[in-house]
Amino acid sequence: MKAHAYAVVSEGRPLEPYVIERRDPRPFDVAIDVLYCGICHSDVHQARGEWNNSTYPMVPGHEILGRVTRVGERVTRHRVGDLVGVGCMVDSCRECSPCRDHHEQFCEKDCAWTYNGTEMDRTTPTYGGYSTHVVVNEAFVLRVPESLDPAGAAPLLCAGITTFSPLRQWGCKPGDRVAVVGLGGLGHMAVKLAAAMGAEVTMLSTSESKAKDAARLGAKAFALTRDEATFTKLAKSFDLIVDTVSAPHAYDDYLRLLRPYGVMAIVGVPPTATPVSAGSLIMGNRRLVGSLIGGVAETQEMLDFCGEKGIVADVEVIAASKINEAYERMGRSDVRYRFVIDASTLRS
Amino acid sequence: MKAHAYAVVSEGRPLEPYVIERRDPRPFDVAIDVLYCGICHSDVHQARGEWNNSTYPMVPGHEILGRVTRVGERVTRHRVGDLVGVGCMVDSCRECSPCRDHHEQFCEKDCAWTYNGTEMDRTTPTYGGYSTHVVVNEAFVLRVPESLDPAGAAPLLCAGITTFSPLRQWGCKPGDRVAVVGLGGLGHMAVKLAAAMGAEVTMLSTSESKAKDAARLGAKAFALTRDEATFTKLAKSFDLIVDTVSAPHAYDDYLRLLRPYGVMAIVGVPPTATPVSAGSLIMGNRRLVGSLIGGVAETQEMLDFCGEKGIVADVEVIAASKINEAYERMGRSDVRYRFVIDASTLRS
Repeated sequence: MKAHAYAVVSEGRPLEPYVIERRDPRPFDVAIDVLYCGICHSDVHQARGEWNNSTYPMVPGHEILGRVTRVGERVTRHRVGDLVGVGCMVDSCRECSPCRDHHEQFCEKDCAWTYNGTEMDRTTPTYGGYSTHVVVNEAFVLRVPESLDPAGAAPLLCAGITTFSPLRQWGCKPGDRVAVVGLGGLGHMAVKLAAAMGAEVTMLSTSESKAKDAARLGAKAFALTRDEATFTKLAKSFDLIVDTVSAPHAYDDYLRLLRPYGVMAIVGVPPTATPVSAGSLIMGNRRLVGSLIGGVAETQEMLDFCGEKGIVADVEVIAASKINEAYERMGRSDVRYRFVIDASTLRS
Repeated sequence: MKAHAYAVVSEGRPLEPYVIERRDPRPFDVAIDVLYCGICHSDVHQARGEWNNSTYPMVPGHEILGRVTRVGERVTRHRVGDLVGVGCMVDSCRECSPCRDHHEQFCEKDCAWTYNGTEMDRTTPTYGGYSTHVVVNEAFVLRVPESLDPAGAAPLLCAGITTFSPLRQWGCKPGDRVAVVGLGGLGHMAVKLAAAMGAEVTMLSTSESKAKDAARLGAKAFALTRDEATFTKLAKSFDLIVDTVSAPHAYDDYLRLLRPYGVMAIVGVPPTATPVSAGSLIMGNRRLVGSLIGGVAETQEMLDFCGEKGIVADVEVIAASKINEAYERMGRSDVRYRFVIDASTLRS
């Protein structure tokens, strides 16, 4: 069946209307009418070929929220009419050690990314959520609580799990002191989630203008990272730092803000390597760790948690015709805090 | 009472015979006749003022092994005649959160280092184990199993705990794949301890000449880090890497050797900061962590473990008159794998 989409048809082109073919549901497949699809920074990088891994035509989008319209004959997890989501992956080998451990994002045969990749046959290209519908194996389709605003819930599928996972991995709990570095798509989710887990959240930002929003999102404190005194005043303060910044910044300065055995979890990707002193890690047995999205089970856990706590992203819903403009505005951080495409506008 | 010692009397001087005064045991003190004291690389750095924190006269030495000769009236943990050890610390505040958590090395008031520091009064200088006897509060005196060779046991007090702690912190267990980077004082202990914990140990070294020793110490495999193919062949292989190297080296290359959720524990201190790519950490949720010695309780656990497994350091016992020569030879890595001073030679 045909799906109306927005695609980068060939290298260097803007996003434009495009029609793709979706397969008929196989026995384990779920067909989904897309309601909303979030725009992630990685969409922009890949659409523009900035990661040197782009294949075209490309239909971006891995923050997909929709309703089930058809299910394959052997599907048991989802029913027609269910509110569901699809994140960064649509399949994996399901047999290797990481897959068995529910870390499909680290599948030893490489998982099937939702777009700019291929299915596990390594031949069929995958197309993402900037489209009217998708067809995905049920094992990679998430249940979305009906209580959540569906537009706001779409970014949970990437921005949500990307920040939820390090908080869970490192045992964020009531009373913990958590710092979030950078208030953007990821950062605003990190603040909401950490606060909902009972942590006392401090926002570390380069911009005074974010202070009010940080407080509204749940941060108890705010500190400017352009102010050197911040790094003295807050030395040895935090159990956990979630670092969402993709501009160059000095990891050593932030490591010193950790208490003994504290963890700095990196989810932003600066363009170049960052110098790290052995002493910054050794003094205080500090930990500098990375985190990549989350597995399917953990993503479901995150959605259930958000349902229970009433957490969605702060979004600006746009028509598909505004995608290129949205990409530009994201370059200026001119969005609070996530663009979401209204998929009903993809047909026009 | 007077103790015969070897000291750096003032900046730039070699080690030379020196007499210091040790306090009479207070109610909680233990007086110890030193039998052996290991020579740690940090002794060399501090004796030469290379860390810009040196005060003179300095009596180095924090791998102290001896017998109890007197105990204060309220001492309960040790008895005259006991074989005991003293490591890097001789006191701490015992009240702060890290002290209560048995991480005295991160005492918020700063612990009292065994030498080149002060007692908790912040006035009385501390003098280390290159001396005929020491007087230490019982809470910082460790029980040493009588079954262990006392000369070989001395380096356990620093080299042993420094490598034991990251193995324990990161749950090293039978079947784990552990790599040890660098075969020196720390590295040879890491191999022995990881092997004794049941891990399958790989030695990563710049020098082919270490292969035979690595096998003897318990390593199942050996790979040359000068050979680029090593980093391809062993990609995603290890659960844990213990990095003991203090020469500059590319952390990113080693991080790629870790399996998902793998840990690279830094115990060596390169002279400059090392570039780390966010991608090396994010892809695989990898962890780059530091580890500084260990607390008193963990040091005791290590000594008990070594007693049970019959583990000591490989040592070259020297007379005090050879200390300066030993320092020079350590600069050329010309020791397998730890110099230990025979304290009976300090009087001459």
